[in-house]
Amino acid sequence: MRNIKLTIEYDGTNYLGWQKQKNGATIQGTLEEAIKLLTKEEIELVGSSRTDTGVHAKAFIANFKTNSTIPADKFREAINHKLPEDIVIIKSEEVDINFHSRYDAKGKTYSYSIINRDIYPAIGRNYLYHIKKKLNINSMKEACKYFIGTYDFSAFKSSGSSVKTSIRTIKDLHIDEENEIIKIYVTGDGFLYNMVRIIVGTLLMVGNNKIKPEEITNIIESKDRQKAGICVPAKGLTLEKVYY
Amino acid sequence: MRNIKLTIEYDGTNYLGWQKQKNGATIQGTLEEAIKLLTKEEIELVGSSRTDTGVHAKAFIANFKTNSTIPADKFREAINHKLPEDIVIIKSEEVDINFHSRYDAKGKTYSYSIINRDIYPAIGRNYLYHIKKKLNINSMKEACKYFIGTYDFSAFKSSGSSVKTSIRTIKDLHIDEENEIIKIYVTGDGFLYNMVRIIVGTLLMVGNNKIKPEEITNIIESKDRQKAGICVPAKGLTLEKVYY
Repeated sequence: MRNIKLTIEYDGTNYLGWQKQKNGATIQGTLEEAIKLLTKEEIELVGSSRTDTGVHAKAFIANFKTNSTIPADKFREAINHKLPEDIVIIKSEEVDINFHSRYDAKGKTYSYSIINRDIYPAIGRNYLYHIKKKLNINSMKEACKYFIGTYDFSAFKSSGSSVKTSIRTIKDLHIDEENEIIKIYVTGDGFLYNMVRIIVGTLLMVGNNKIKPEEITNIIESKDRQKAGICVPAKGLTLEKVYY
Repeated sequence: MRNIKLTIEYDGTNYLGWQKQKNGATIQGTLEEAIKLLTKEEIELVGSSRTDTGVHAKAFIANFKTNSTIPADKFREAINHKLPEDIVIIKSEEVDINFHSRYDAKGKTYSYSIINRDIYPAIGRNYLYHIKKKLNINSMKEACKYFIGTYDFSAFKSSGSSVKTSIRTIKDLHIDEENEIIKIYVTGDGFLYNMVRIIVGTLLMVGNNKIKPEEITNIIESKDRQKAGICVPAKGLTLEKVYY
C-alpha cells in the first residue's frame, strides 16, 4: 500500500465546493471518480480542507492510498487525462504512509481578489468580487496589522461548524494593489468556517470608512459575529498554499 | 440624430468574434440586439476592429446612431441590463455625429498572456496560452526592439484579408513578467490580420532559442510568412485600448 500526495489547481466556479455530495459535482467527487477509473480500486481522497462552492485553489493538497503499481509521478498525467479542464493535478508524489492532508497541515495561505471600479467586470468575473465605491486602501492596509497574532476569532466565524476552539493564529495579512485590482493575502495556522471571507468583509468596513483600523481589536475582543463585516462572496477566494 | 460611443469590455470565450454572422453568437450581434430592444430602432453598431473567435477586449470602442431620447450616459446601465455577463459596457457618451470607431482609430494596444510552467492551468485557462518549456525571457525582451518602427509586415500577416498596404508602425512592444505569467504588450497604428498573434509566435521562436533576437530584422525584410512564427491561439489575446 502506498500513499500518494496530489497538489491540485482548480477553478471552483462550476463545483459545489470540495466535499462530495449528492446534489451535484464537487472537486473531491470528480477527482475520486477519475482516480478510480485509473486504479480500479475503491480509493478515498483526503483533502487538506473543505472549500465552499465557487472557491478556487492554486495548490490544494489531497492524498489517497493505493495498491496500484503506477509510478508516483505518473499519476499526474494519468489522472489529468481523465479530468475536466477546470481541475488540474500540478504534482503527484509518494509520501510516508502516515501522511494525512488535513491532520498534518500546519497552515494555509488564502488570497481574496477585488475589482474596485464603477462597473462590474466581464473578464475574470468568476475570480473577482466587484466593489463600486472607491476603497480607502491605506486604511485597509493599516487595519491588517490588528489581525496579526493569536486570538479567539469567534467574531469571524459563521455558524454551522463545530470546532473545539475558536483560537487561531494569523501570521500574515497584507494587501497588494495594481490599478483597479486589490488582492488580500492571509496566512494562518488554520481558519474557522468562513473566517477569511469575514475578515475581508471587515477590512471592507475599514475601506469604506465605516470603522477605523484600530477598531479591529474591539471587534476581535467582542467575539460577536454581528460586530464584524459581511461574509464576502466565494468567487474572490483562492487557496494559495498549504504548509506541512 | 445622435452618435453614441460605447467603451466595451468582453470575455470572448463564448463568441465567434466581433463581427455578426449566422453561425452563432458574436459580440456585435449580441450588442445590436440589446440596443434594439432598448431603442426600438434598426441601429447598426460600428466597431473599431474585428476581433477573432475567443479574443477578449478591455476597452473595445463602438458607435451607433440613434433618435432615442435616452441621455447618453444612461445607455451604459440600460444596455448592460440586457446583456449577458460576459459583455459589459464600461462607458457610454455622445460624440460628434461624424465620429467613426474604425476610420477614426489612430492606434491600438493589445496584450498577449502566456503561462510558462510545466502543466496547463485550470484558473484563468480562457485567458492564458500555456507554454511548457521554460522561455528565455531576456532574449524575447531583446527581440522586441527589432519590431519597433515602420516596416512592411507582410511576413506577419495571415492570408484571407485584403488591405491596400502591409506597411504598419509599431510604436511599442514590451514584456512584463510576474512569476509564471508573461504578458506581451504591443502598440501600433494598426495591425494586419493575425499580426499580433504572429509577432508573439515569432517572439516564442526567440524564447525557445531557435532564432537570435537580431534575426527579427531578416524575417521582417523577407516579407515571407513562412519565416515568421506560428499564429498563437486567440484566447491569450486582449484588446487593451483604442486611440483616437
